[in-house]
Amino acid sequence: MKKRLSSLAILAEGKLINGDGDTVCHGAFPLGEEKSGHVTMIDDPRRAADLDDSEATAVVCSEPLNNVSMAQIVVSDPREAFTKIVACFRPPVSLEMPGWGIDPSATLADSARVHPSAILGAGVTVGQRTRIMPGVVVMPNTQIGDDCVIHSNVTLYENTQISDRVTIHAGSIIGANGFGYRQEAGRHIPTAQLGYVKIDSDVEIGASVTIDRGTYGTTHIGEGTKIDNQVMVAHNCKIGRHNLICSQVGIAGSCTTGDYVILAGQVGLKDHITLGDQTIVGAQAGVMEDCEGNQVYLGSPATPQREQMQIMAVERKLPEMRREIKNLRRDIDRMIKQSEEASTASMSDAKSPESISIRCHKKRAA
Amino acid sequence: MKKRLSSLAILAEGKLINGDGDTVCHGAFPLGEEKSGHVTMIDDPRRAADLDDSEATAVVCSEPLNNVSMAQIVVSDPREAFTKIVACFRPPVSLEMPGWGIDPSATLADSARVHPSAILGAGVTVGQRTRIMPGVVVMPNTQIGDDCVIHSNVTLYENTQISDRVTIHAGSIIGANGFGYRQEAGRHIPTAQLGYVKIDSDVEIGASVTIDRGTYGTTHIGEGTKIDNQVMVAHNCKIGRHNLICSQVGIAGSCTTGDYVILAGQVGLKDHITLGDQTIVGAQAGVMEDCEGNQVYLGSPATPQREQMQIMAVERKLPEMRREIKNLRRDIDRMIKQSEEASTASMSDAKSPESISIRCHKKRAA
Amino acid sequence: MKKRLSSLAILAEGKLINGDGDTVCHGAFPLGEEKSGHVTMIDDPRRAADLDDSEATAVVCSEPLNNVSMAQIVVSDPREAFTKIVACFRPPVSLEMPGWGIDPSATLADSARVHPSAILGAGVTVGQRTRIMPGVVVMPNTQIGDDCVIHSNVTLYENTQISDRVTIHAGSIIGANGFGYRQEAGRHIPTAQLGYVKIDSDVEIGASVTIDRGTYGTTHIGEGTKIDNQVMVAHNCKIGRHNLICSQVGIAGSCTTGDYVILAGQVGLKDHITLGDQTIVGAQAGVMEDCEGNQVYLGSPATPQREQMQIMAVERKLPEMRREIKNLRRDIDRMIKQSEEASTASMSDAKSPESISIRCHKKRAA
Repeated sequence: MKKRLSSLAILAEGKLINGDGDTVCHGAFPLGEEKSGHVTMIDDPRRAADLDDSEATAVVCSEPLNNVSMAQIVVSDPREAFTKIVACFRPPVSLEMPGWGIDPSATLADSARVHPSAILGAGVTVGQRTRIMPGVVVMPNTQIGDDCVIHSNVTLYENTQISDRVTIHAGSIIGANGFGYRQEAGRHIPTAQLGYVKIDSDVEIGASVTIDRGTYGTTHIGEGTKIDNQVMVAHNCKIGRHNLICSQVGIAGSCTTGDYVILAGQVGLKDHITLGDQTIVGAQAGVMEDCEGNQVYLGSPATPQREQMQIMAVERKLPEMRREIKNLRRDIDRMIKQSEEASTASMSDAKSPESISIRCHKKRAA
Repeated sequence: MKKRLSSLAILAEGKLINGDGDTVCHGAFPLGEEKSGHVTMIDDPRRAADLDDSEATAVVCSEPLNNVSMAQIVVSDPREAFTKIVACFRPPVSLEMPGWGIDPSATLADSARVHPSAILGAGVTVGQRTRIMPGVVVMPNTQIGDDCVIHSNVTLYENTQISDRVTIHAGSIIGANGFGYRQEAGRHIPTAQLGYVKIDSDVEIGASVTIDRGTYGTTHIGEGTKIDNQVMVAHNCKIGRHNLICSQVGIAGSCTTGDYVILAGQVGLKDHITLGDQTIVGAQAGVMEDCEGNQVYLGSPATPQREQMQIMAVERKLPEMRREIKNLRRDIDRMIKQSEEASTASMSDAKSPESISIRCHKKRAA
Repeated sequence: MKKRLSSLAILAEGKLINGDGDTVCHGAFPLGEEKSGHVTMIDDPRRAADLDDSEATAVVCSEPLNNVSMAQIVVSDPREAFTKIVACFRPPVSLEMPGWGIDPSATLADSARVHPSAILGAGVTVGQRTRIMPGVVVMPNTQIGDDCVIHSNVTLYENTQISDRVTIHAGSIIGANGFGYRQEAGRHIPTAQLGYVKIDSDVEIGASVTIDRGTYGTTHIGEGTKIDNQVMVAHNCKIGRHNLICSQVGIAGSCTTGDYVILAGQVGLKDHITLGDQTIVGAQAGVMEDCEGNQVYLGSPATPQREQMQIMAVERKLPEMRREIKNLRRDIDRMIKQSEEASTASMSDAKSPESISIRCHKKRAA
């Protein structure tokens, strides 16, 4: 789909500056995913420098950006305007009702095998030797590559992009709406969830996994990454290559992981976290801050292993420490008291220094 | 369905007192959900005062309740008797096998759209403009309001009540049996799970969510509440209005939340917890006690934010604290020793007070 | 299926010693699950003593085992060889595409009821009075006993064995591949997942549960055990009898639980953990070490209740403890200083012992 900037500006109720209305765009993506031919968006003019290396053809913004050379569509509310533009390129279709079986507009490779109970929506493509098992629902415009296996009762929402040699186990849900709301007059209003999920080659996804679509662009699972059962990956995450993500891990929105990251069971990541290459996070840890790579993190909040192991070792000694603190206080108080008595005594009898002798009940913790 | 008290008393193998056997009831609900025309139940006579404001028509109880004016069905085992009465009004039907497609007794609004692969059981109703996507299973007597979207492969067990503008994402399971057992001769015997799930208007439910039915009455999701993927809500919970419940939260049985409660990712609530309005619980926290509203709680066990932040700050200092305690002990022991030596010395030579001087190796923690 | 040892040795590219090539085997199971007539495997010759009580007919091993009397198939890579032998007895069939409805080779008891939308693969058997609800997918060679209920949209992978009176709630996935990989040239290569899930009688499984198949043999759920929604049981686990496993528990690979074990909500078990009979683990605990039975464990890492309660009680006092340590340090430093001053003073004026008096600012923590 192609759109002229002049018509996008009208759609967005904005003013086109610094560009030619006849210039044609073919997509709209958030910053970081945009390419030449795309419209992108800056919701804060102070972040204009983020556009320095961008090849985007146009940017939606709330005021003219002086040092930006690309075409600009200036609007009052960039998010709202960008939502309209994204929806223009990628219309929400999840509410379209597919028919029985395989839609006539779907394209299946010769060697692809689709169970007759599976539903394939309009515009779906399925690659060579790919097998789609019973009860799978593939919503419109989803692309599935070669040599994939989509197990029973999986749901792939619209526009999902799956590369080659991807396995998805039963019951997983790829591309449901992200959990994004704004409050208005005491009600939570869902924000637009117009993106999709992109899964690179050689990814394996376990059973009952949920991966939500991006807000405007992608939630991305990098090549060779393996995801265990019941993992949750929220909207806009960019999971790196060759990660191992164990069961029941929860990754909140807009997180980024490097390559060869390992997340053990039940780990949680706060939103907008970045983990460097080869980060390892131990079971049940809760990551609240970015983590540099090549390191092991444990605990909640997650802390470098060495530090956390020391903390945990001391935690087991806490009752003993508390007793020892009480003993220390008692010993000191007794010394103070005896010293004061000695002082008083010495004033009355300067010849009895032995009264200064301090005796303490010493009871070491066991 | 209507039943006379006399026949309910016979069914329950109980004795009707304080009421007219010809009085008609049309439902049975646990205390807190009961209305006029309903039978309710008190399993402990000491809780009879809980009936003071009740408009129930009759109560099942284990002995005559003196200060209670409503009709009473006195039985030896109130839970067992009440189970029979509830089952009489709401027979367990999950084991009825629906047919292909839409049961002839289901009622669909003109503008409702149901995918041909969806299964709608007997007595199901679907409101205007509601869409039911592929692979959805709607068990008998479930009611779905207007403008709802039930995404692919969702299962709605029998008697589920869904109001208007409710969205349920793919793979969610509404109304499965609660996890309730009693032990008998070394075996876990399932207790009756005769209730259902009631979802108010403008609720959104993510993918792979599970919400269990109530034991006798409802598990209730209040208006405008939004629930993220992989959340678990157990039997008998009453979730308030406009809550935000993030991914992988687990709420055990019989919890109650106020309005505008926020539960961050992977939070757990023990059973029978009550959270006040606008309670916020931080990620991975474990709530073990009721929480007053308008406050943030963190940690496991969950603790008010200010207190928990102080605890967490000190936890990071634990290794240092332990070293300092050891240093303190050493310093004190040395003082004691020197004092004792001084005392001994002073006894042999009362003229050498300088021997009392105390010198300590002071090594501050880094 | 029966195989002669000679042909298995050829298949495994190994050398048969200590046995007759014409001896017939009918299965291959890992140590601990093997019986007479089976081939088993030892991947480390130092573990040969584990075969002492084994009735296996043959063992795959990497070198001749001197004190082992059974037939031996000696190979260079026992895991790889055993994978081939297991696959020979139990060929991977998950990729076979079932047809519509019930495969002609499936065997249903007269009184079994299967919804017409359910898919039953080749060789499936269904017992008396068992009900299979809409959208259920039963892959080839799965056996289901009498009086079971398999709720909507459940997936049972191939070779699953389900005994009598088993209930599985909607959306659960039994028998997906275990999460096992080895790294090779920077890529995670899936290891063979050739086993299956075995569920004994009177087990109840909630909604959206995932139980992965064993690597070579079984993942086993013992008689009478009840599993709540969204629980994850990884490959090779042996869950004992009459356990209660609450919602969102995650059990990593190769764990073993005794009888009457209770795991509260959101508990996590590290892989290869053993829990004794009647172990109780509190909500959100993380079990990192084997636990003896008849005891309650809390916290992460899980610790016996009494010890953990003491630790948790002290944790709440941490800010107070830190203040007290600072006070102790100040008091001691003051004492030391005064003592040193006194010593100095006494040297200049030996007649003033009162200068030794120690006065401390004592501020007890609140």
